[in-house]
This record gives sequence, structure tokens and C-alpha cells, in this order.
Amino acid sequence: MRVLSGMRPTGRLHLGHLAGVLSQWKQLQDKYECLFMSADLHALLSEYKDPSQIGVYSRDNIADWLAWGISPESSTIFIQSQVKQHIELFFIFSAFTPLGWLTRCPTFKDQVKQLKDKDINNLGFLGYPVLQAADILIYKAGYVPVGEDQLPHLEISREIARRFNFLYKKEIFPYPQPILSPAPKLLGTDGRKMSKSYQNCIYLSDSPEEVESKVKNMFTDPQRIKRTQAGRPQICNVYSYYELFAPDVREEIKQDCLAAKIGCTDCKKKLAGILKKLLEPARDKKENLLKKKGYISDIIDSGRKKAEVLAEETLSQVKETMPFAR
Amino acid sequence: MRVLSGMRPTGRLHLGHLAGVLSQWKQLQDKYECLFMSADLHALLSEYKDPSQIGVYSRDNIADWLAWGISPESSTIFIQSQVKQHIELFFIFSAFTPLGWLTRCPTFKDQVKQLKDKDINNLGFLGYPVLQAADILIYKAGYVPVGEDQLPHLEISREIARRFNFLYKKEIFPYPQPILSPAPKLLGTDGRKMSKSYQNCIYLSDSPEEVESKVKNMFTDPQRIKRTQAGRPQICNVYSYYELFAPDVREEIKQDCLAAKIGCTDCKKKLAGILKKLLEPARDKKENLLKKKGYISDIIDSGRKKAEVLAEETLSQVKETMPFAR
Repeated sequence: MRVLSGMRPTGRLHLGHLAGVLSQWKQLQDKYECLFMSADLHALLSEYKDPSQIGVYSRDNIADWLAWGISPESSTIFIQSQVKQHIELFFIFSAFTPLGWLTRCPTFKDQVKQLKDKDINNLGFLGYPVLQAADILIYKAGYVPVGEDQLPHLEISREIARRFNFLYKKEIFPYPQPILSPAPKLLGTDGRKMSKSYQNCIYLSDSPEEVESKVKNMFTDPQRIKRTQAGRPQICNVYSYYELFAPDVREEIKQDCLAAKIGCTDCKKKLAGILKKLLEPARDKKENLLKKKGYISDIIDSGRKKAEVLAEETLSQVKETMPFAR
Repeated sequence: MRVLSGMRPTGRLHLGHLAGVLSQWKQLQDKYECLFMSADLHALLSEYKDPSQIGVYSRDNIADWLAWGISPESSTIFIQSQVKQHIELFFIFSAFTPLGWLTRCPTFKDQVKQLKDKDINNLGFLGYPVLQAADILIYKAGYVPVGEDQLPHLEISREIARRFNFLYKKEIFPYPQPILSPAPKLLGTDGRKMSKSYQNCIYLSDSPEEVESKVKNMFTDPQRIKRTQAGRPQICNVYSYYELFAPDVREEIKQDCLAAKIGCTDCKKKLAGILKKLLEPARDKKENLLKKKGYISDIIDSGRKKAEVLAEETLSQVKETMPFAR
């Protein structure tokens, strides 16, 4: 069974990506035939006003994937826009995708409201779920890891597959199923949603000094004013980082905090140490990969070739089934 | 200056195409660098339920163009879907084309209402003017022959060009201007709009017998009941064919009709003779072209190559200006 997943290259990767996506990808690649794509066309739909960094982030993100153990041997790593078949299938799908499916999609209206500064009430953004359907179905992927909020999009992918198979009387496409991501909501260092625009991210590429200074400034339990007071790990943002990234010591920290055996300053110092140790090997590895001339480019290139073969196979079947371009 | 024009391959060509489009193309190709495209992607947007004939009509239409004097030496003749850059530029444009421009476009609502049996309230059809903009701008065409009703679409093309040039601070695209087609409204043999679905067309490929029988059954002036009555050429559908296709004899026919010197039966016989003579050489030429093995395919293929070079040049400039896919 084939799995497709992607990331929009709109920034550097941070701890949220590590906890939410990369760790899942690593599990998936051992079980399935995986395709991991840098979704630069999707990025373009929101970043069209300044797309100049999309290509830069694409390569940087892929370097991170590799450094964190995504294997170019067992998985296919590629950049969406380089496999032209995505847009071609998107166009074919758009011919029979009712506007109602898209305007009623809860994420569309939400996003237009949320990203007010981005001005995305455009044709391309309305077609986002159709492009996503093409991304998935061009590889006949059976599984797609998604968060709960992305389920309506995957439903549209299935509807499109169903409509194609029905209209052209042939079972070309599977009906892709979700692999629900546990989606541990990691908050930023200030306790708000982790987001580039809030400047509250710890990036995978941050230097030890940056990690130290960011953790030092993290919010903890606001009711714990004195060192001698007991803390409340269950509402402490710093503790949530222990939960995710320090399985060995989290229980000990929890008890120490509840018993006021450890203060916030020491607790954060300890966390900084753990994170630095966590990030260091992959950061070093990434630096080495980037130093090897042509290494990343070769991987992207051979990923493109592998993806193209699969995509062209599907597109040929599509055109045989609905022979418009003979 | 470059000119782009196209036809949707949704059927065989008829006298309406000859009077409306082909005669204009012949004039244009002597004055401008012309690109003539079979717009099969546009056809797909309305014919998606049964696209199987689109490819057939594409080739058949192009054979007609050649038979009627469109020259593959002086013009570039190609099939839209074979030049992949169209869809790619369409996608880029869609990222910044506001939905309002499209939903407010008068032709969109009209068409959705008119083509009720076609069910075109879909994403693709909404994007029709954006694809058209890509068709035109990928070749930086400065002129586009259009009918009056198509002017809003061309306005959208200019808006898109303007928005691109503004967003990316570079004058990549021209603002294409219309060459207004005189658009002689040729009615079908039954006096309704000439349309495949009304079965009232005289096709360029009709045999002499078909022409004869179709003209014989044409509607004339319904008030002229007796041969001895004077006719009213100005409201007679048969006379409108003389106007367009028989400049040498139309004045004579008009006077004879007004003076009741000629009856409808003879008038139609005469018209049939004129049309047969008009169609015969091109029909023979077309048959010969179709017999030459690979002749049409070679023209389409070399047209694609010529178009691709121009299209890729523009697309490279676009990607340099908004470097998202490096």
C-alpha cells in the first residue's frame, strides 16, 4: 500500500514538525511505500505575493527530512512542481469538480478569514483540495496521514476519485483513507500556537545558544511565583516539552515540580540541555549533507524521476479512459 | 505583433466557422505572426462527460483549417493540451486571480444557465477565463480576434497581466487588445442559431448531396406563399447565405426576389449549386491531406514544437521573476 504525505515549504522546520510529522513519517516509511513531497505549489497559493523563499525552504526542509532519518532509498522524496503530472491531473479533475464541494469545504472559509493578511480569496486557493486530490491520486495512494482538521479535504479526494470512476466507467482510482495523526499540539515558547509569525518557534536548525536563550524565556506556570511553591506540570508549557521530547525523565521532573524540589530556572536549564542534545546530531548531519556538493540535488532529482514514472503511468491510464488528447 | 486564436474542438466545422473565423484567420496570417490552436482543454471543460470525440475533432478541424488555406509555414498550428506550459501558467495565474473577477464575469453565469444539460458549474469552468489568459499571455500575444461577447474575457486577461506585472514588479506581459470580429451571425438552415445540437448546420465536409438536401429544406420568407408574390430578402435566411457566400450574384438575386422574378425553389437550387462549388475544392484538398500518411500529424507535431519554444521562453521568464520552483 502506498502513502503520500507532504509539507508546504513556507519556512524552516521547528520542533512542532518534528513531533507532529517527521516522527510519524519515520514510522510510516518502515511499513509502507512512502512518497514525501515538498508541496511548493500549495505554498504558492498562499505565498504568491512573495514566493522567492519557497524554493529555498523546499531544499532546506528536505535536508532536514534526510537529517532526521527519512531515507531516500526506501522513500521517494520529491518537489511537487517538478512532477508536471500533478497540475495536469488537477486540471482534468477541475473539469468535473462542482464548485459547491469547494465553497462548502469548512477549511476554505476558515482560512480565508484567518489569513486575512494573505488575501487568498482566489481561484487557486479555492482549488486547493482538488490539487490535493491530484497529489494523492496521481500515485494511487491508499493512505494519507492527516490531522483531524484535514479530514474534509480527504473526503473531497474520495469524492473526486468516485466521480472519475463513475463518469468514465472504470475503477482507476482508489479511495484514499486517512491515517489520523496523533497531532500533539506543541505550543510555542510563549504559550501561543507555534508559528513563524509569532516568532515563538524552536527551529531544528537553531544553534545551542539559540535553544538555550529561547527555553530560558519560556512561559511556565504563572501561579508559581516562589521557588518554594509546588508547580502544576499539567498546565505548564515547559513540562509539555518534557512530555514529548524527554520520555526518560519526564516522570521524575513531574514529581519534582509537584513537590517543589526543582525550580523553573533549573527545570528550563535541564530542558535546554535535553533539546540541545536532541537536535545536535541531526543538525550536524544536515550540515554535512549540505556540504556534500550535489548530494541534496541528486536526491531530489532521483526522487522526481521515480515519482514521474508512477505519475505518468496513472496519467496514461486516465487519458486512455477519457481520451481527450489523442 | 503576435496574434493568438483558437477553436474548441467540439464538432465538425460548418459554414458559420467559415464565415466567422476561418476567413478572418486567412486575413490575419498575412499581416501578423499567428498562432492557431485547437483548444481541447477548453473543450474538456464542457464536454467532460464524454470527451472521447475531442481528439477526433481536433485533428478534423485542423485538417479543415489547412484545406481552407491556413498555412503551416506562416502560422503555428497546434493542439493546446500538447503544450504543457499552458496549464502551468494557468496554475500560477490562478494563485492571484480573485474569485470575484470570475464569478462576476457575465459569460460565466450566462453559460451555466444556458448549458443546463452540460452541468458546468464546476471549478474548471469558473477558471475558463484564466486558462484563456494563459493561452494568450504564454505567447505574449498582443492581439486576439474576439466577438463582442468575449470582450469581458479579454479584459480579465489584461487584468491578470496587469496584476502579474504589478506583483512581481516587472513588465513581463503585454496587455492584449481585441481585434473585433465582424461576427456575421449566420443562422442554421431552420432559421435558429447554427448549432450542432439543432442539426441545422451545413458542414464544410458535407457531400454535394447533403448540401443539396439541406438547402432544399431551408426556411425562406414565410409570408411568400405563392411564386408570384414578391419576397423579402432582408428577412430571408436563404438570402443571408447569398450575402455571405455569393458576392457576385447577391444583388441580382435580391432584385429578382423583390420583383418575384425567381421563386424560392429555384433560388435554393441556385444557392445549393454555389455552396457545392464553394465547398468542393477544400473538401477535395482535405481528403487528399488526410490520405497523405502522417501529414497532419507532422504539422501538429512541428506546431507543438514551435509553440513550446515560445511558451517555455515566457515560462522561464515568469519563474525567474517569481522564483518559486528553483
